[in-house]
Amino acid sequence: MSESGLNKRLAQIVGAENVSTESVDLLCYSRDASENVGMPDIVVWPNNTSQVSEIMKLANELKITVTPRGAGTCLSGGPIPTKGGILLVMTRMNKILEIDIANLQVLVECGVVWQDLNNALTPYKLFLPPDPASKDACTIGGCMAECSGGVRAVKYGTFRDWALGLQVVLPNGEIIETGAKTRKGVSGYDLTRLFIGSEGTLGVITRARLRIFPLPRCRLVMSAYFDSMESAGKAIFRVMTSDLIPSAAELMDKQTVEAVSKFMNMKFPECIALAIFEFDGSSLGEVKRRIRQARKLCEREKATRVDVSETVEESDRLWRARKSAGPALATLKPSSMHEDATVPTSRIPEMLTRIEQVAQKHNVLIPTFGHVGDGNLHPIILYDERNQDEKKRAKAATADIFRAAIELGGTLSGEHGIGLSKAPFFSMEHSSPETEVMRKIKNAIDPNNILNPGKIWAGA
Amino acid sequence: MSESGLNKRLAQIVGAENVSTESVDLLCYSRDASENVGMPDIVVWPNNTSQVSEIMKLANELKITVTPRGAGTCLSGGPIPTKGGILLVMTRMNKILEIDIANLQVLVECGVVWQDLNNALTPYKLFLPPDPASKDACTIGGCMAECSGGVRAVKYGTFRDWALGLQVVLPNGEIIETGAKTRKGVSGYDLTRLFIGSEGTLGVITRARLRIFPLPRCRLVMSAYFDSMESAGKAIFRVMTSDLIPSAAELMDKQTVEAVSKFMNMKFPECIALAIFEFDGSSLGEVKRRIRQARKLCEREKATRVDVSETVEESDRLWRARKSAGPALATLKPSSMHEDATVPTSRIPEMLTRIEQVAQKHNVLIPTFGHVGDGNLHPIILYDERNQDEKKRAKAATADIFRAAIELGGTLSGEHGIGLSKAPFFSMEHSSPETEVMRKIKNAIDPNNILNPGKIWAGA
Repeated sequence: MSESGLNKRLAQIVGAENVSTESVDLLCYSRDASENVGMPDIVVWPNNTSQVSEIMKLANELKITVTPRGAGTCLSGGPIPTKGGILLVMTRMNKILEIDIANLQVLVECGVVWQDLNNALTPYKLFLPPDPASKDACTIGGCMAECSGGVRAVKYGTFRDWALGLQVVLPNGEIIETGAKTRKGVSGYDLTRLFIGSEGTLGVITRARLRIFPLPRCRLVMSAYFDSMESAGKAIFRVMTSDLIPSAAELMDKQTVEAVSKFMNMKFPECIALAIFEFDGSSLGEVKRRIRQARKLCEREKATRVDVSETVEESDRLWRARKSAGPALATLKPSSMHEDATVPTSRIPEMLTRIEQVAQKHNVLIPTFGHVGDGNLHPIILYDERNQDEKKRAKAATADIFRAAIELGGTLSGEHGIGLSKAPFFSMEHSSPETEVMRKIKNAIDPNNILNPGKIWAGA
Repeated sequence: MSESGLNKRLAQIVGAENVSTESVDLLCYSRDASENVGMPDIVVWPNNTSQVSEIMKLANELKITVTPRGAGTCLSGGPIPTKGGILLVMTRMNKILEIDIANLQVLVECGVVWQDLNNALTPYKLFLPPDPASKDACTIGGCMAECSGGVRAVKYGTFRDWALGLQVVLPNGEIIETGAKTRKGVSGYDLTRLFIGSEGTLGVITRARLRIFPLPRCRLVMSAYFDSMESAGKAIFRVMTSDLIPSAAELMDKQTVEAVSKFMNMKFPECIALAIFEFDGSSLGEVKRRIRQARKLCEREKATRVDVSETVEESDRLWRARKSAGPALATLKPSSMHEDATVPTSRIPEMLTRIEQVAQKHNVLIPTFGHVGDGNLHPIILYDERNQDEKKRAKAATADIFRAAIELGGTLSGEHGIGLSKAPFFSMEHSSPETEVMRKIKNAIDPNNILNPGKIWAGA
């Protein structure tokens, strides 16, 4: 079918105003928050599930590639088209359909922005715990497709742990509802969690039913400064293996602290490493008790200074600082790759050393921060993409970081997904029989390979 | 191949002493804890993963059915052979391979008994939270295959939430390792959770890596007695939507309380409903504070009496009583079907009424207890299977209970699985496109349909 023919058929489904082949749109949707680029042939903004279904039926009939996309905050190239085709922008399906207080759950369309959902929950003193750094922009559908995490995953888990069910449009256009309205459910295969983290390769997630949780009455944040990475690593280990159960356990290295300090115009004490812990609970006395215990553990591991935020404003300010780490570091060089190599918690100190060695070996800057409480580091590989040699060194450094994570018993991705960025490294982590099972599932559900091809394993 | 030929080939793999066609063995493995019966042709006890792999290769070559089985405590017929074939008893693969304190995880063979694992963890003040009622006997592999729950699922979730990865032997004999050693991981499709709850139809789970958790320093149990189901339902609802986060929220109806009282020789105050709450935490003061709050909520909903267990022994005694509910009720009639219909928490009072109506309509006894905190009820349909009419009425009552659960927005199974018992009702809950996705996955992974056929959807 000619491009104008396809354009017309899509316009019949969603209305002409919701289809575009303008260069500005194609360009806009050729990027996410990663280093990847890929142009679609046509951009479509569906408004409801039945339109998505019609689009998929058409695409499947014509064997045209479809790439679904939320806010495009993905850090691994998940929503980047590899073979042109249709780019499906899901952001207009942004209704909160149900806030079910009695059953502590919500039903939302995929395009609902994380922060909008949580703003709607605050009056009820409820919240959705997993909180990606991009929460002001990212959509729930994107969070589902990538199985996003965030700082509170260390206590509350990731999106996989909060999903009850999904509405999914299959590659053939059929609409299914997975899961149940009940937290417990073992009725048939766990399709909910098969689609979660499948990065838009198995179906288009159009709705999600999620558990929500009573907002803790108190949250206190503690910052502990260390003059060595080793001490910081040990202190975090002590806290994590205690029964103090922090709701966040973060680390920022010296370079990150300095960049954030400049970017946010905040002063931090001199340090090699800054650990940030949050504790939450329903009683202030209890939270303070846990903070005191955690402070002792940090002091025992030679923290040079420990501060506890006295007010909500102070805590918020510290979290804003931590969440600005990515953007702050991105100002140091024109380009950056934000990785999320994750290792068993006990291997964190070794992994930090390995990252330092990789930076030296390839002569690139790799400041590191991240969710150390669950072993999830964010080494940021900084480079200038106009400098071919530096770009090459940055790529080589990235590969070495992946290698180190796997050697230390970890995984390529804690929360960003494999997407395009890590597809070349997939076989480092997964055996061919395991990949073959994934491939068979993909083939069974999407035999024409029209949905987001070229992701996860190279050439999906 | 003749039976003796098959026998010989299997004996070459596992040793003659680990293969049996003796009637006593066939009979022994023809039942689980449900009402289902099905005879295997041959029983095999593998000792390691490579033996399982060899057995699967042989079975796949000869297209012989294989049914894997743990302790056989399943309540839905999951490990009952529907087409004879090989019965694979996994209980000899019972080694705890690794207790990794630093990373709060364990690696175990599938045949490890739940209680043995937790006994091994107690000295480290750690535990595996999901606790099925059959914990003294059930194996971790079985818990994985069925995605078991238990009383603490209301706070801690089910096995799906604690799995990090699995070792699985595929129907073609290939061995794969799914997941990662890290809690967060989004590297490829979530095969771990695809195999969890797949009831042995997609692969034989041979090992599991599980997260473990610091044992709470304090646990207190509160019993609240009510003179109506409605009041009990409301009190539970109040506690569940507060931020008190009980680690258990159980209900027993009058019939169950009376049966347990007799069975355990314990005295309970007169009541129509008994609600049992557990609260856990790291400080006694904090747990007591939450108990006081919960007591107030129960009293506000007209609890006739509220008791708090003062000692661990008292709490343990109450839990033993609660966990004896199934066996206690089973003494009332020669046969029983233990269901686990689950509804959104807010529909619990209606569901309880519906169960009462069903019992009256079909003139059968259906005492009910269960994990009301997460909507998971256990109506026990009692009958005498020698009485054909009563058996028929019991079956009809069961179908009506499933219908009620679905009508109230619930699911057929909260934690027991679909197995054989609920396969005829599967289409009540799942649309045909959804079932078709499951079927396609099954066909892709087990094209010869040799692994545990006839389960989940009728005639899998």
